[in-house]
Amino acid sequence: MEQAASPGGENLVLIAGAGRLPELVADSLVRAGKPFRMIALRGFTGRPLRGRADAVVDLLDLAATLAHLKSWGPAVVVPAGSVARPSAAAIFNAGAAWRNREALREIAGGGDDRLLRAAVSLVEENGHRVLGVHEAAPDLLCPEGPLGLVKADSEAMASIRTGQAVLSALAQFDVGQAVAVAGDRVLAVEGPEGTDKMLARARALGRKPFGRGRPNAGTVLVKAPKHGQDLRIDLPAVGPRTIRNAHAAGCTGLALKAGGTLIIDRVATAAEADRLGLFVIGFGGGA
Amino acid sequence: MEQAASPGGENLVLIAGAGRLPELVADSLVRAGKPFRMIALRGFTGRPLRGRADAVVDLLDLAATLAHLKSWGPAVVVPAGSVARPSAAAIFNAGAAWRNREALREIAGGGDDRLLRAAVSLVEENGHRVLGVHEAAPDLLCPEGPLGLVKADSEAMASIRTGQAVLSALAQFDVGQAVAVAGDRVLAVEGPEGTDKMLARARALGRKPFGRGRPNAGTVLVKAPKHGQDLRIDLPAVGPRTIRNAHAAGCTGLALKAGGTLIIDRVATAAEADRLGLFVIGFGGGA
Repeated sequence: MEQAASPGGENLVLIAGAGRLPELVADSLVRAGKPFRMIALRGFTGRPLRGRADAVVDLLDLAATLAHLKSWGPAVVVPAGSVARPSAAAIFNAGAAWRNREALREIAGGGDDRLLRAAVSLVEENGHRVLGVHEAAPDLLCPEGPLGLVKADSEAMASIRTGQAVLSALAQFDVGQAVAVAGDRVLAVEGPEGTDKMLARARALGRKPFGRGRPNAGTVLVKAPKHGQDLRIDLPAVGPRTIRNAHAAGCTGLALKAGGTLIIDRVATAAEADRLGLFVIGFGGGA
Repeated sequence: MEQAASPGGENLVLIAGAGRLPELVADSLVRAGKPFRMIALRGFTGRPLRGRADAVVDLLDLAATLAHLKSWGPAVVVPAGSVARPSAAAIFNAGAAWRNREALREIAGGGDDRLLRAAVSLVEENGHRVLGVHEAAPDLLCPEGPLGLVKADSEAMASIRTGQAVLSALAQFDVGQAVAVAGDRVLAVEGPEGTDKMLARARALGRKPFGRGRPNAGTVLVKAPKHGQDLRIDLPAVGPRTIRNAHAAGCTGLALKAGGTLIIDRVATAAEADRLGLFVIGFGGGA
C-alpha cells in the first residue's frame, strides 16, 4: 500500500558503502519483494553491486545525494556498509551541502560515526526517514536460539548469564558492546577498539598464566547493542571472521542479542562455527 | 603491649619478594617503630634488602619458612613484593611442606595469585595471622585528597564520577580494577591484563579516530580494588611508571581509591605527576 503511494513505485533508497553488507541488504530486499533504488558511493561500494546502482555519487557530495532523494521521493532511506572518514581537507573542500563551517569543523575533527550521524541528520532534515539495516532487512539479524549445530553446555550457559549481567550493568555507560567471559571471570570488556581486538586480548591472556592457568579456556563471547544505541549508525555485527577470532581466543561459542546483532552471511557464519566446533546462540530478553 | 608478649620482641615477620615494595614496607615499619624480622626469598628479594634479612629461603622451601615462623612466633606475617610463578616441575620437586600432590597439581596449573593464595593459606593453617601491606604499612597507601600540585578541573571530576560509577556497576563481577574515561565515554575497562596494558589500549585509541576524533583527550584513570578483593594477595598499585603510562595514554590525571591503592614511592610518584602536569587524587566513599 505504502509502496504504491511512493513516486515510481520505489519507496526505499539504499545508500551503499563498503563491505559485504550492502549487497546482503540488497539481496534481502529482493527476497522480500521490496522495490528499492540504490545510491553507490564512489570508491566504497564494491564493483558487482555498483553495477546494480541507480546512481553513483561521491561520499562528500551530499548535494548530489539529496538531489537524487528529492527526485525519487522515497519513504525511507537506508544507509548500509562502512565508509572511511575522509581527510579533514576533503571535508572542508566538499562544502556545498553543508550548512556552515562550524558544523564542518566539528565533523572533520570527529570519526566515522560522527560523520555518519551528521549525514543521517542532514538527510532527515531534508524530510526523509532514515531506517537502519535491522529495520529494512531484519532477516539479516541473529534469530533467537541456536544458529549452527553445536550446542552450548550448562557451563557455557552460566558464563553467558554472567556476560549478560555485565552488559546490563554497563548499559547506562558508553562502553561494552561485548564481553568475553570464562567461568565467572570476565576476561575482557569491549571498548571502542571493537570485538576483534577485544578477542585478540582474550587470546593474549591465554598465552601465559595471568593469575590462573589458561584463563581463556571455555570462554564465551557475549554481544549485544548498548541501550539507546542508534542501530542505524552502529549495528553490532559478527561474521565468519568473528567466529575464527573467537576460536583463536579460546572461545567455545558466541551468544548474540537476537534481533540486535547483524550476521554477515548467516550460512557461512554457521558453517564456520560448525567447522570449528563453536556454538552460536541468539538470546532475547534483558541484556 | 602486644610486642612485649611476642618471643624476642619481634611481633611481625616480613616475607620479602621482588620489586621495591618490600624495602618500602621495611622502611615504613622502621619509621613506625614497629620491630620486625625479615625472610628474604632467594632470587627475588633485592640485594640491599637481602642484607637486612634475618633469613634467606627458597620460595618453594615452605618448610624452612614455616620453621623460622615457628621459632620466632610472630603475631603477624606480612608478605610483600612479587614472585614469579616457578615451573610446574620446580613446584612438584619442592614437595616437603605441601600436603598432597593434588593440591600441588592445582597450584602448578595456576598462576601467581593462586600460588600466593595457597602459601597464605598454609601459613595461616600453621597458626599465623597474615596481614597485607595495606594493614602493616598503611602510610604507603594513597591518602584522601590531592597528592601532587596539579588540581583536577570540573571536567575531570565529572569523568572521575563516571569512572567510579562504572567500577561500582562492575563491583559484583570479577573484572575492573581500573577504568579509563574521557568525558562520559569509557575508553577501556581493565581486565586481567593489568593497568599498564589497559593504558596502552587507551593510548592506541588516540592514534587514529575511533568513532570520534582524539577520543583519549582529557582521559582520567580511575582505580580501586574490587569489592571483596583480598588485598593481601592483590593490592592495586601505582608508581612513577603508571604516571608516565597514563600521560602517554592522554590522561590528565589519576583518581585512586584512598586507603585501597598502594603508591610505590609517594615522593617520586607525586614528582613525576607534577613534572608531566597530571593530577593524582585519592577518593574515599563508595566505589
